[in-house]
Amino acid sequence: MFMNILVIHGPNLNLLGEREPGIYGEETYDKLNNDIKTAADGLGISCEIFQSNHEGAIIDKLHEARKSCSGVVINAGAYTHYSYAIRDAIAAIRIPCIEVHISNVFARDEFRSKSVIAPVCAASVSGFGRDSYILAVEGLVRMIERRSDNK
Amino acid sequence: MFMNILVIHGPNLNLLGEREPGIYGEETYDKLNNDIKTAADGLGISCEIFQSNHEGAIIDKLHEARKSCSGVVINAGAYTHYSYAIRDAIAAIRIPCIEVHISNVFARDEFRSKSVIAPVCAASVSGFGRDSYILAVEGLVRMIERRSDNK
Amino acid sequence: MFMNILVIHGPNLNLLGEREPGIYGEETYDKLNNDIKTAADGLGISCEIFQSNHEGAIIDKLHEARKSCSGVVINAGAYTHYSYAIRDAIAAIRIPCIEVHISNVFARDEFRSKSVIAPVCAASVSGFGRDSYILAVEGLVRMIERRSDNK
Amino acid sequence: MFMNILVIHGPNLNLLGEREPGIYGEETYDKLNNDIKTAADGLGISCEIFQSNHEGAIIDKLHEARKSCSGVVINAGAYTHYSYAIRDAIAAIRIPCIEVHISNVFARDEFRSKSVIAPVCAASVSGFGRDSYILAVEGLVRMIERRSDNK
Amino acid sequence: MFMNILVIHGPNLNLLGEREPGIYGEETYDKLNNDIKTAADGLGISCEIFQSNHEGAIIDKLHEARKSCSGVVINAGAYTHYSYAIRDAIAAIRIPCIEVHISNVFARDEFRSKSVIAPVCAASVSGFGRDSYILAVEGLVRMIERRSDNK
Amino acid sequence: MFMNILVIHGPNLNLLGEREPGIYGEETYDKLNNDIKTAADGLGISCEIFQSNHEGAIIDKLHEARKSCSGVVINAGAYTHYSYAIRDAIAAIRIPCIEVHISNVFARDEFRSKSVIAPVCAASVSGFGRDSYILAVEGLVRMIERRSDNK
Amino acid sequence: MFMNILVIHGPNLNLLGEREPGIYGEETYDKLNNDIKTAADGLGISCEIFQSNHEGAIIDKLHEARKSCSGVVINAGAYTHYSYAIRDAIAAIRIPCIEVHISNVFARDEFRSKSVIAPVCAASVSGFGRDSYILAVEGLVRMIERRSDNK
Amino acid sequence: MFMNILVIHGPNLNLLGEREPGIYGEETYDKLNNDIKTAADGLGISCEIFQSNHEGAIIDKLHEARKSCSGVVINAGAYTHYSYAIRDAIAAIRIPCIEVHISNVFARDEFRSKSVIAPVCAASVSGFGRDSYILAVEGLVRMIERRSDNK
Amino acid sequence: MFMNILVIHGPNLNLLGEREPGIYGEETYDKLNNDIKTAADGLGISCEIFQSNHEGAIIDKLHEARKSCSGVVINAGAYTHYSYAIRDAIAAIRIPCIEVHISNVFARDEFRSKSVIAPVCAASVSGFGRDSYILAVEGLVRMIERRSDNK
Amino acid sequence: MFMNILVIHGPNLNLLGEREPGIYGEETYDKLNNDIKTAADGLGISCEIFQSNHEGAIIDKLHEARKSCSGVVINAGAYTHYSYAIRDAIAAIRIPCIEVHISNVFARDEFRSKSVIAPVCAASVSGFGRDSYILAVEGLVRMIERRSDNK
Amino acid sequence: MFMNILVIHGPNLNLLGEREPGIYGEETYDKLNNDIKTAADGLGISCEIFQSNHEGAIIDKLHEARKSCSGVVINAGAYTHYSYAIRDAIAAIRIPCIEVHISNVFARDEFRSKSVIAPVCAASVSGFGRDSYILAVEGLVRMIERRSDNK
Amino acid sequence: MFMNILVIHGPNLNLLGEREPGIYGEETYDKLNNDIKTAADGLGISCEIFQSNHEGAIIDKLHEARKSCSGVVINAGAYTHYSYAIRDAIAAIRIPCIEVHISNVFARDEFRSKSVIAPVCAASVSGFGRDSYILAVEGLVRMIERRSDNK
Repeated sequence: MFMNILVIHGPNLNLLGEREPGIYGEETYDKLNNDIKTAADGLGISCEIFQSNHEGAIIDKLHEARKSCSGVVINAGAYTHYSYAIRDAIAAIRIPCIEVHISNVFARDEFRSKSVIAPVCAASVSGFGRDSYILAVEGLVRMIERRSDNK
Repeated sequence: MFMNILVIHGPNLNLLGEREPGIYGEETYDKLNNDIKTAADGLGISCEIFQSNHEGAIIDKLHEARKSCSGVVINAGAYTHYSYAIRDAIAAIRIPCIEVHISNVFARDEFRSKSVIAPVCAASVSGFGRDSYILAVEGLVRMIERRSDNK
Repeated sequence: MFMNILVIHGPNLNLLGEREPGIYGEETYDKLNNDIKTAADGLGISCEIFQSNHEGAIIDKLHEARKSCSGVVINAGAYTHYSYAIRDAIAAIRIPCIEVHISNVFARDEFRSKSVIAPVCAASVSGFGRDSYILAVEGLVRMIERRSDNK
Repeated sequence: MFMNILVIHGPNLNLLGEREPGIYGEETYDKLNNDIKTAADGLGISCEIFQSNHEGAIIDKLHEARKSCSGVVINAGAYTHYSYAIRDAIAAIRIPCIEVHISNVFARDEFRSKSVIAPVCAASVSGFGRDSYILAVEGLVRMIERRSDNK
Repeated sequence: MFMNILVIHGPNLNLLGEREPGIYGEETYDKLNNDIKTAADGLGISCEIFQSNHEGAIIDKLHEARKSCSGVVINAGAYTHYSYAIRDAIAAIRIPCIEVHISNVFARDEFRSKSVIAPVCAASVSGFGRDSYILAVEGLVRMIERRSDNK
Repeated sequence: MFMNILVIHGPNLNLLGEREPGIYGEETYDKLNNDIKTAADGLGISCEIFQSNHEGAIIDKLHEARKSCSGVVINAGAYTHYSYAIRDAIAAIRIPCIEVHISNVFARDEFRSKSVIAPVCAASVSGFGRDSYILAVEGLVRMIERRSDNK
Repeated sequence: MFMNILVIHGPNLNLLGEREPGIYGEETYDKLNNDIKTAADGLGISCEIFQSNHEGAIIDKLHEARKSCSGVVINAGAYTHYSYAIRDAIAAIRIPCIEVHISNVFARDEFRSKSVIAPVCAASVSGFGRDSYILAVEGLVRMIERRSDNK
Repeated sequence: MFMNILVIHGPNLNLLGEREPGIYGEETYDKLNNDIKTAADGLGISCEIFQSNHEGAIIDKLHEARKSCSGVVINAGAYTHYSYAIRDAIAAIRIPCIEVHISNVFARDEFRSKSVIAPVCAASVSGFGRDSYILAVEGLVRMIERRSDNK
Repeated sequence: MFMNILVIHGPNLNLLGEREPGIYGEETYDKLNNDIKTAADGLGISCEIFQSNHEGAIIDKLHEARKSCSGVVINAGAYTHYSYAIRDAIAAIRIPCIEVHISNVFARDEFRSKSVIAPVCAASVSGFGRDSYILAVEGLVRMIERRSDNK
Repeated sequence: MFMNILVIHGPNLNLLGEREPGIYGEETYDKLNNDIKTAADGLGISCEIFQSNHEGAIIDKLHEARKSCSGVVINAGAYTHYSYAIRDAIAAIRIPCIEVHISNVFARDEFRSKSVIAPVCAASVSGFGRDSYILAVEGLVRMIERRSDNK
Repeated sequence: MFMNILVIHGPNLNLLGEREPGIYGEETYDKLNNDIKTAADGLGISCEIFQSNHEGAIIDKLHEARKSCSGVVINAGAYTHYSYAIRDAIAAIRIPCIEVHISNVFARDEFRSKSVIAPVCAASVSGFGRDSYILAVEGLVRMIERRSDNK
Repeated sequence: MFMNILVIHGPNLNLLGEREPGIYGEETYDKLNNDIKTAADGLGISCEIFQSNHEGAIIDKLHEARKSCSGVVINAGAYTHYSYAIRDAIAAIRIPCIEVHISNVFARDEFRSKSVIAPVCAASVSGFGRDSYILAVEGLVRMIERRSDNK
């Protein structure tokens, strides 16, 4: 089954490896993307990676994906906690989105314990470090396959 | 009396007709804009239509309108619920802004019942489907005429 | 298409023109009703106007309207903010009700920013001064016509 | 032991059978009252039934009952959730009042989960459909008898 | 200076002397009104006394008073805590209103500690038993005289 | 129609008659169970009674009942206010459960005014003393019969 | 009947006439005290006046008064809103205290709408300008006389 | 690397396949456990599965695991939302625990959006149906290996 | 005077010495119990020690103690913060219970600052490390002696 | 080991024996201080006792104690609930402070259930009547000795 | 232009250099005052410095300053967070007050994020360590000069 | 010491001089920037000024500054109150950021009293009009110098 997925990194994630390494790990942003690509290859699927600090650009990208992709893995960064606009975009595009976080957001600042996009995401993975992305991709693929099987 | 108004569509409204048709109706985004244009023509006024998923772009457009337009009709989409920056822009430009919503936002999710831009808008219309825009344009024109008469 | 609508003014609206003219305008209550009647005539519909300071009387009137009217325009005054009994009456009668306010209630006292009847009204208009009623009547007529067309 | 009880139906309950039948059942208001009367007859007690949409009229009736009745069964409708005036009337009259609801109010809207009259009622019954009234009458009779026995 | 004042007793106050005598005292409602009348006579003013359990009737009476009275003393009973409609009526009529309570409402139930009419009343007196009314009448008279002097 | 019902007493109810007799009455726990048994006999149904202070044991019992019983009457004691696990058990077993309380829980401590199991119970009875159980059993039987009739 | 009362002015009240005259009036602090003294003389009672900006000094004074005074009139200024220590002092001394405010505190800042001393005061008067003190003294005298009569 | 992990199912999960299949799927509880076992075998690790409706039994099991297991996958069911005792047990045992949920709990009841155990779990997976468990097991194994590598 | 007291350790306390030694100290659970026994011996009283992770087992034990013990010292662990069932058990048994905590719970997580059992305990001691238990036992003995003296 | 400790009594505690004896006991303030002195003598330590109704004076005293004392036992009275200034003083002086209350403050008014000084105190004792002070002194001495041993 | 300003240090600031040096720095209180004096000299203005732990003394000082000073720089210490009495004093004296904090109070305890005096201060500076005072003095001088220029 | 700083103006600040001059002053945006440049020249440092209405553009700029600048002065406009994404950017870049506001934001709308970026800024200045920027630049320079000295 052919599958093209989109991985979205939200604001400040481009600084990974440099930003607060105690929380986010010391591996670079490029290393993470390579790992994701490798995992996607291993699963035999196509995978596009996108990063932006702009809320609007993330929405534009999600709209674009509704035609070209089978599903989305999204780490919306701090937009997770207040962007109802991204939430509406996810709800509108009708392809499954998986919420992902590197750290266990529930064990950090109070404001990080609330995700406004969670209710419209199909599933979520957090706390496994860079593996959160890999598990999310695997889970997304299985979910799409299963839905396809049920048709 | 010559009048030029601006109609702003916020995030995700470009997907109208496609997005959650149970709530927003099945007519397309283009059809809606045509109806607005037709109504404006019928009232003998000029009408510009603008859409963006970018909060900053909406603010830029509002700033621009303060010199070139008599009033604004704005459906800020999900930004309605948290964009204090758009609120400040509306407060700053000093031309009347009418808040508009296609559905009755009060009957949906809890978070949609609060509008941070409402306190700085002159008036609001919601729940009439696409007619919300038409009624808002009519109301805005009457409001501007009345203010003009009172001078 | 024959249409009979009911316009309900809630508590204290009989003092319009006299009460806080800075907020509600200086035109009298009778002038407002004449304008509404004129607009209804222009639309070729029949229009009854009712005012009461009694919550129970407004409920009785709504019950009565469910058989004799096609729709209701209601400015529930301060009952807007706490009368769950009027809310239940609106929900029970199954004809469309349009909530209307003269001023932009969202820009005034905190307690006025919550409407308990909004979730059961079909649509709402506020902030256009006396034109709020006129626009509400127009919108209601279009809404009824559209629903009729869809049958 | 001679006993005269009062059953009060609050706002909108006169529309029973017609109003939201999915929640309140399809049997008419008159049928419900007949069933209550029949149950009262079966218990050998006298029973008056009263309905009003007016908060003040319900208070007047409660005052009147303090001299002529042994107890009250009251479904205060939406007044249940905010009428501190009815609450004070129940507290003032010193005869036992039983709160009754047709549906399980706790499983519906958030605002319906709070009863301001509950703390001054002797007991409550809800969720049994029309049987809620019948059980409330039975319970009230037993309660009055028991209190009488303890004198 | 000729002065006509109105004293309004809200819901359940007609049961004074009978209702919860531990809180409201054992003197009857009629005795209280006689005392108020006597005090008014002593001050050389005219005084009308009105009681109703109906929120709407209290609003009607307040409207009527705006033409015929110099000021109002009001014990709104439980309506004190939620009747924004009475609040709007008081704000609309532009004559001074004094809020009065027999008991110290702040030392009782939580919900009694909030008065929605207080912000639009000119002054308030509570906790002096029946003397609360007498002191309120005296204070109202002095307030009207002083305002008259300042003109 | 054959019917087997289960009555569950939650934590501390085994101390009835001994524990706070001012609130719960002086009759013993055994007396209460005898009264319930007698009432069940009178209705021609079978009735099992179960008590545990263990949340998990109550859940186990509810699971067991889903096969062997037609309905449940449950006084969950203090678990009423926080056991979402019991709530889930009630929701899972698909037979009607009636919530019952001896005293009027709404007139006691603040924390007792919230029931987390109420939204998944079919109905509730409280405040009739030991009769709460009897009325609950009667109501449950009628509810099951009515549902059976509607099939 | 001999009576000695204490009038306490809390923080910043010594600046009366100078401080925010739009709210507190233009008459000086000394003029106010003279008016209180004159009123006390007219009632044939003895009256001490005390002012301090120190919370502890007000508590010391209240302690002292429990032996030497029949009652207290207290305007605790801003301490009204948070001094639980003054509250405890009033509760401890067992002579009646009347809370007094010059302005209608409920119509000003949000934080001024809560009084932590109100629940332990016998009564309160506010909003009559300087007359608030005079009415409080009159009310206190009547209250003490009445209690004395009841002994 | 030898690894023994524990999978804990909390209250009501033994009813899987039977309970609310719209939310939890129609596959049986036994089928789920077989799938987990198969996945563990595939990863070359040992895996124990435990289910209890008893909060205390889950705590006992967690204590036991601190000596015998390398990590835990736990679906605490409704205890997720209030069992601070399970939270303390997880914090005490010092081996990594992965929180897992079958459905996307954030899109359901309000009370389900808060997890009291999340802050002490190492990571979490939800919304993938039965695959949530499989992904959690995979993620746990990688996490333990990575930690082992870092020693 | 003969005295038998019960010391209850709630969930996870059996791991003392092993669990978070930074907070709870490094001494073992057995050492703590020996210290308590020694202290009891020194006071000439009998002392039983009980530990369970099961809420229901703690309730069962409290019930049992009402006949056999003079008082209880209880560290309810995390149940402190939500077990209204244990609270009810303490209230029901009528012998004095002393709440005890090893650490100063107020200086830790927000949720630990609320104790639902505190209002029904006679007294509490916290923050003295293992000495909290010793002081609680001493205080309990003095309290029982004093009550005995007052009889 | 030589030890000098300070016992601070906050506002209104000088009225002990006179103030609300139902809560605080009938023994006088002097008797309490004698008991504390006797206990200190028995432990072979020096003990200063200080009382003030002035928040600032308590802070001054705490500052003074940082040089001359080994530890502090403080009953801050009502300042317990809002004096962040006393809290900062306790945090600043770096010697252990034990919070003490005569009654079980958690079982009284809502506002008394929060202590702003608790998070910076080393330990707390409450509810043992006058013995609370004695136990606090004993606990403080053991705590200082233990810390000294660990150096 | 001649200028005399007052610098007020609130509670516990006299311990600077000794108290929590990690937050407040290691320089002594005297060193800070010397730096402020030097800065004032450099600006050619007169500067008085005052410290007190007494809320009332700070109010007294502010009153005194209204005649003798051009402006005030105030670090109210913990009184910042609850002293509405100091707030009223600042509002009453009508000379500009600048709020100053050594540390960034927003990054510390939750309760420190709210300042009740901020709304009546003209400006604020925080987080620059001892330079906060110097910048506040500079800013105050410029503000007074500018106001003087505008006259 | 060479120093390059960045000054960021957030949304709507480009309208300064035109927008709400009662709050923000009448001087133009260009005049403000000239003043900042002049002040920077006077301090012998280099200073870049940037304005954008786009949240994402501000984040991009902050990222860029982490390599090229010694520090940042930021007036985030309305983003101050909700942009956790800008907060994360400030936290990530590790150079000191000073928060600045022209007006005293604490004395305006409620929602303006909360800054989500304050906890990650090093210091803040507000209320001095355009001088807020000048003082912030001065303070930032001193802070960088001091940190450099301490290395």
